[in-house]
Parts: sequence; C-alpha cells; structure tokens
Amino acid sequence: MTVVTQASELTAALGNAGQPRVLVPTMGALHHGHLALIRHAKILAGAQGTVVVSIFVNPMQFDRAGDLAAYPRPREADLAACRAAGVAVVFAPEAAAMYAPDHSVTVSESQLSRNLCGAARPGHFDGVCTVVLKLFLLCSCQIAVFGEKDFQQLAVIRRMVRDLNVPVVIVAHPTVRETNGLAMSSRNARLNAAQRADAPRLRRALLAAQAAFQAGTRRPAELLTMARQAIEASGLARMDYLSLVDADSLESVEHVEGPALLATAVFYGEVRLIDHVCLVP
Amino acid sequence: MTVVTQASELTAALGNAGQPRVLVPTMGALHHGHLALIRHAKILAGAQGTVVVSIFVNPMQFDRAGDLAAYPRPREADLAACRAAGVAVVFAPEAAAMYAPDHSVTVSESQLSRNLCGAARPGHFDGVCTVVLKLFLLCSCQIAVFGEKDFQQLAVIRRMVRDLNVPVVIVAHPTVRETNGLAMSSRNARLNAAQRADAPRLRRALLAAQAAFQAGTRRPAELLTMARQAIEASGLARMDYLSLVDADSLESVEHVEGPALLATAVFYGEVRLIDHVCLVP
Repeated sequence: MTVVTQASELTAALGNAGQPRVLVPTMGALHHGHLALIRHAKILAGAQGTVVVSIFVNPMQFDRAGDLAAYPRPREADLAACRAAGVAVVFAPEAAAMYAPDHSVTVSESQLSRNLCGAARPGHFDGVCTVVLKLFLLCSCQIAVFGEKDFQQLAVIRRMVRDLNVPVVIVAHPTVRETNGLAMSSRNARLNAAQRADAPRLRRALLAAQAAFQAGTRRPAELLTMARQAIEASGLARMDYLSLVDADSLESVEHVEGPALLATAVFYGEVRLIDHVCLVP
Repeated sequence: MTVVTQASELTAALGNAGQPRVLVPTMGALHHGHLALIRHAKILAGAQGTVVVSIFVNPMQFDRAGDLAAYPRPREADLAACRAAGVAVVFAPEAAAMYAPDHSVTVSESQLSRNLCGAARPGHFDGVCTVVLKLFLLCSCQIAVFGEKDFQQLAVIRRMVRDLNVPVVIVAHPTVRETNGLAMSSRNARLNAAQRADAPRLRRALLAAQAAFQAGTRRPAELLTMARQAIEASGLARMDYLSLVDADSLESVEHVEGPALLATAVFYGEVRLIDHVCLVP
C-alpha cells in the first residue's frame, strides 16, 4: 500500500491510467461503514483496477471550529485498516497540500443544498463540493463510492457531477449500522456512555414514523410530531432539524405523493448525528 | 472535421485519448485572433494530437440580456474558418445541451475576479469559470489556449485550474490587433463606422500612458488621468473602468513597484470593448 501526502506524488502512485480507478473519499476515523465502501470499491475496481482511499479532514466543510478541532484523526489505525482491506493507495494530505494560502475558487450548489444540513451548516456543501471535485481531479478516478447515510451530500455531489460534466460515476452504498440500529459515524466515538446508549432512539423514532406512514398516516405534521417526540423523549438529544422532504428535490413536502425522506440531525452535547428513512407511498 | 452539438457525442468524436488534445474555447464569431489561437493549438497538439474548438455563446457569463442577444453568431462562417484552419473537432452545443433546466452548480473565484470586469459585470466570471471547467471536462483536454486580451479571464482561469487541481495546462497567446492597433474582438463587428474609426484611440491612449511611465511618470493618478482624457477626447467612448492594477493580484496599486496592468473597458453605444498594457518598472 502506498501512502501519499502530496498531490504531486499521486500520479506516480496511481500507476496505469488505463485500468479502473475507484476512489473512496473519507475524513478518516474509519469504521465498518467505510470498510463496506472499500469492499464495494474493490469489487468495482476488479482485479486490474486500483482502489484509492482519501483521508482528509477538510477544513472548508466545517462550520464550527470546535467540531473541526474535535474530529477524530486516528492516523495509524486508519492506515492499518486500509492495509488490511487491501487498499492500493491512500491519499492523506495535510490542509496546506490541498489549499494554497490564497485559495479563492469555490464550487457551490444552490438548490439541493439549501435545506437540511445545508441550512444548519452554512458553507458546508460548498466545502464538500470543492474538496470532492479536487479529489476527483487529483485521483483521476472513473468511479467514486459514497455512503447513503449522508444522503444530502450524495445528492449534491451527483448534481455537481451532472452540472459540471465530471467524468466520474457516483456509486452509493447503503448505511451501515450497529446492531442496535445506530448509523455508523466517525462522530459516534465522541459520544459518552449515556449518549451512546440513547442514540439508537434516532433510528427507532424514524422507523416508527416509517411504520406509521406505511400503516396509512399521511399527514407530514403528524409524522414529524411522532418522530420528534420519540427523539426528544429522553431529554439527551437536542434537535437540530427534523424534516420531511421530497427524495429528489430535497424540498419540504406538504403531501407525500412520491418518494420522500424523513431526515433528522440531532446534537448530543457537541456531537452532531444524522439519520434518515425513506417513505415511499 | 467533425461538428458535434451534444456532449454525449464528444467522446466518439475526440478519438484516441492517448494523444494530446488541445482545446480552444470560443464564443464563435471567429476573427484573426481566434485563428492565431487555433494555429498555436495545432503546434501544441503536434501531428498526432487533436485540436478541438468549442463555439458556445455562454448565457451564464452575460450580465446584460441585450449583449447576449446581440452577440454575433455567424455559424456557417465559423465552421468554414475552422475547417480551413485544420480543426479536427468543433463542439458547438446549444445552451440546453450545456445547462439542465435545474442546473444549480457554480464555480466561482473570489479574489482575482473582484475588480475590473468582475466589478463591472456581476456574475460574469462565475459564468466563465463554470463553462470553462465544463468544457475542459467534456473535452478531457490536456491543454487549452486562451487569448491574453481577456487578461482577467486568463488570470481567473489559471487560478481555477490551480485551486481545483484541474489537469489542464493553460497556454496564453498574445492579443492580435488590427493594423491600426485595435484589439481584435468579436464585438468589433457591432461598431458603426464612426465608432470603428474612433476605437483605436483606446490602444493609443494606453500606449501613451505606457510611454509616459517608461519616461518616468510613476504616479498612478497622473497616468490614469492622461489615459482617461485621451480615451474620452472624442466623446464617443463612454468609460466603464480604467484601472491600474498589480499584474498578479489584480488589486489597484498606489505605487507601481512590480509589473502592473493599465486596463480599460469602454462602451461605444451598447458595445463594450476592453484593452490593457503592461507597465514594468
């Protein structure tokens, strides 16, 4: 496994341009969710292709300095996990290798990024779009694999790829969960014991609303109230948002007439977690 | 010569990916300036490479609807000129082939695009960056050739390439001029006889200021006044801006201590022309 920290070293490390190159962009603190993405990437790359994992805690996509500072960075464990997973190249740059001091170019998305995490985290998706495009171009990958957990990120990146004619196929991988239902996230490691024990209620609340929907409850207000009460019941989770949005436009829906997402973000102390379920009429 | 109007047809038209591919992005209405860019592109492509000329009047970079509507579009003459110049592929899409109805992704530059044409034409360089990146990615060119006349555009695109790690080498070609000094521009065709006879005064005014600078006049205010008076003397040219800026940062300079640009944009009626000279202490 080759570990590269400078953009200028990537071309040599990546080798044969004629073979499939599959990128798994991460911010490190790799968990079973990431490893599932990597396994999927290996299948897509095939025997001749190359799996590249990028590990970069991108300052540009953090709206809170404390969140950036506290984001876990277990570098050695991450590299060991990549090695064990059969990754060919890890690109793990420092921020200075990604952004010139006078960096002044931003990629932004103006529709799908307005609501949900985009509204809650100003500038977040500008940072995501910009760094993901940079990583795509640096690695000249043909395929990139993203987790469905960050469904808004996935939608925004797919829009970016479409609108900028980026020659990369975006592959989504289902959310990987703990056995108790909690969506795997690098941020879970920052939860204390009580928060960690409480956090699976997010998933339970969303599934209960989904079940109610399937049983005939159609009014968004009713579904939202049900989910909100279940999430806030213990008093440990502070709601950031809870929204019912169209699955394509990510706009709030008054009536669920097509596929929709019931999505939430909550804070446990300073730790922000997200999750969602699909509602299909 | 292959003429392509759909992005989906480009890959087949472009052929062998292993050979140099050189793009000359234009808005059509090709003049001798464009033809010089194409000749330069042919040298860069070599015998095995491919020269691609894009012809696209990009709505996103126009700040005035009238200017967009009036922009000349002599399609047949442009194709004939490309054919005569030995261009391999012309990419001439309609706007609908470049922008989805719900297009929502923008590439923007925030430093070099603030002054000069960026200040005078809100959103112009967002449109330039976005379409140029799209064209680079659609054509997967390794090299692109731009005219120095649009020096701010050139600086912004170079910054975009640097900051987004775009794998394209940007080559600049000197401004091509009429024998009377007027910088060639597709907009010149829209000048009436009196305006066309008057327009070379831009170049004369800038050269006079450059000569004064070389003769020892160093105060920006003095140089600017001299050039402004010469440009406005006939009463036909209405000043949009006249600025003395640092050649790298494109910020206004109080003292010329390094390479600087004396740059102007003027209106003849509704037709906007630009030109500049370099001042090197």
